[in-house]
Amino acid sequence: MGEFDLIRRYFLPLASRQQGSSLVMGPGDDCAIQRLPAGQDLVFSIDTLVEGVHFPHRYHPDYLGWRSLAVAASDLAAMGAQPECFTLALTLPKADEDWLEGFARGLAEAAQAFGLALAGGDTTAGPLTLTLQVHGTVSRGNAICRNGARPGDLVAVSGTLGDAGAALAYLSETEPSADAAAVLERYHRPQPRLQLGVAAAPFASAGIDISDGLLADLGHILEASEVGARLESGSLPLSPALVRLTGERAPELALRAGDDYELCLTFPPERWESAPEALRRQLTVIGTIEAAPGLYLDGTDCGPSGPDAGFDHFRRRQ
Amino acid sequence: MGEFDLIRRYFLPLASRQQGSSLVMGPGDDCAIQRLPAGQDLVFSIDTLVEGVHFPHRYHPDYLGWRSLAVAASDLAAMGAQPECFTLALTLPKADEDWLEGFARGLAEAAQAFGLALAGGDTTAGPLTLTLQVHGTVSRGNAICRNGARPGDLVAVSGTLGDAGAALAYLSETEPSADAAAVLERYHRPQPRLQLGVAAAPFASAGIDISDGLLADLGHILEASEVGARLESGSLPLSPALVRLTGERAPELALRAGDDYELCLTFPPERWESAPEALRRQLTVIGTIEAAPGLYLDGTDCGPSGPDAGFDHFRRRQ
Repeated sequence: MGEFDLIRRYFLPLASRQQGSSLVMGPGDDCAIQRLPAGQDLVFSIDTLVEGVHFPHRYHPDYLGWRSLAVAASDLAAMGAQPECFTLALTLPKADEDWLEGFARGLAEAAQAFGLALAGGDTTAGPLTLTLQVHGTVSRGNAICRNGARPGDLVAVSGTLGDAGAALAYLSETEPSADAAAVLERYHRPQPRLQLGVAAAPFASAGIDISDGLLADLGHILEASEVGARLESGSLPLSPALVRLTGERAPELALRAGDDYELCLTFPPERWESAPEALRRQLTVIGTIEAAPGLYLDGTDCGPSGPDAGFDHFRRRQ
Repeated sequence: MGEFDLIRRYFLPLASRQQGSSLVMGPGDDCAIQRLPAGQDLVFSIDTLVEGVHFPHRYHPDYLGWRSLAVAASDLAAMGAQPECFTLALTLPKADEDWLEGFARGLAEAAQAFGLALAGGDTTAGPLTLTLQVHGTVSRGNAICRNGARPGDLVAVSGTLGDAGAALAYLSETEPSADAAAVLERYHRPQPRLQLGVAAAPFASAGIDISDGLLADLGHILEASEVGARLESGSLPLSPALVRLTGERAPELALRAGDDYELCLTFPPERWESAPEALRRQLTVIGTIEAAPGLYLDGTDCGPSGPDAGFDHFRRRQ
């Protein structure tokens, strides 16, 4: 199968425009064309996944298809943006039809679930690498940024933390227990909090998605906003499965493990109070923003925050 | 050097906004933000370059920096779009400072020359692979597309063709002749025809950039427009250097070799006549669009046109 057949068969079906999408021309020309409604800003983010770095060798192609778009779309959730469309640059060693079918299936499920139409792409031969760029819209000036946290703001997170990190120990299990299956599902099929992001945008002062671990990602908010934070470990939202699987290690995973793709948001207290109950129910308050720099857990400085606390592609290898 | 230092040192300097750019927030948050003036469409394209496939192993990093953005920007030229900003997903085996310095220098020169500000990116460890997405704007509905060619339209190309293809024979020369140096410059530092594309947009009926060879790329226009074309080989614009270096092989290179990044445009005759002399001077008419399908050179069918005539990443390997 040639490059053009491959694109036609597996990827063009993902290009069908979602209702009301701003995409006016999809794949097939030198560029795609997007037309934004008046008063909307475009928000966009590019992410790369490399085999053996971001996902295991011989990773299930269905999961990879879902996961690659979920990870990218999570950046839209963090900005409070409405998902619109995405591009896919796929580098793969050979045109293996079984693999492509699985990958395209997982990707199509995610595209449908997240409301993202394929706008264009590039398919090349080489070591398995995926780069996706996602596009969303926010009403002008209303994106949730990292630099808006102020002293006194509440720090809240969505869902439960640490599950995807705990899953790493079970990736090769052929018959996982129910608890292991629950955390594996979090790793294989992350759910970007897109609706939550859109709902939170009018109330949140700052936000980020948790890809590298809560401490590292909250650290980025603190650095950009030039503030500190105090967290209570007793408030961390932990799933029953995580607690049963990892016991006393659960809070550490919730603080430092990545891949959960939950949101960490800050709210001025009065805006938190005025937020709809349906929004607040999806979030757990875990601490407060402080004027003094530093990231304290139960009153103890919990080490370097910011860029140094999370995953660093090059530091690891040196 | 860690991932964040690397980004700060080498790439953030490229993020300074050009005058009048639509980029309102660049790198550093989960997403970048672009705000388009009323009446403007966004056009965008993603391209991947893989070491050993799209450029030689141990290729000069300065050239690679320039070339990667030039190749991507050429798609904006083909749509007649005004360049605005770009994202860079860089996968590299290690953080080699000499390499990064050269790459960032070449990239910065290109960004400056083309008027493209860095909007965001992702840096990961892995086999050397570059994916760039470029963003441009066109006034609403005025993009040059592939499907607009009609019988009777003139087929024209910019610059000279075949030079970059001829350069492949000289890539390892340490002291190239003046002619070899001239074609090597075309390969190493392609010049996307951005201003030409913008100037041609009100007059052209269809267009594409020549990345895979004239026959292959014109074939895409013919396929999308459901028309054929007749070309005259005597009209092909050939550089004196190409003719001296390759003699009788020059027209074949002009027809089938890639990497020139010139534009192939079609014009209804009356719009061609009304186009400014300054635009027409940059173009050479090489043939006409016909109602009957097929691509004829000097009256002879010149083989499969369309997708099969050019470079195919997967067909080659099977």
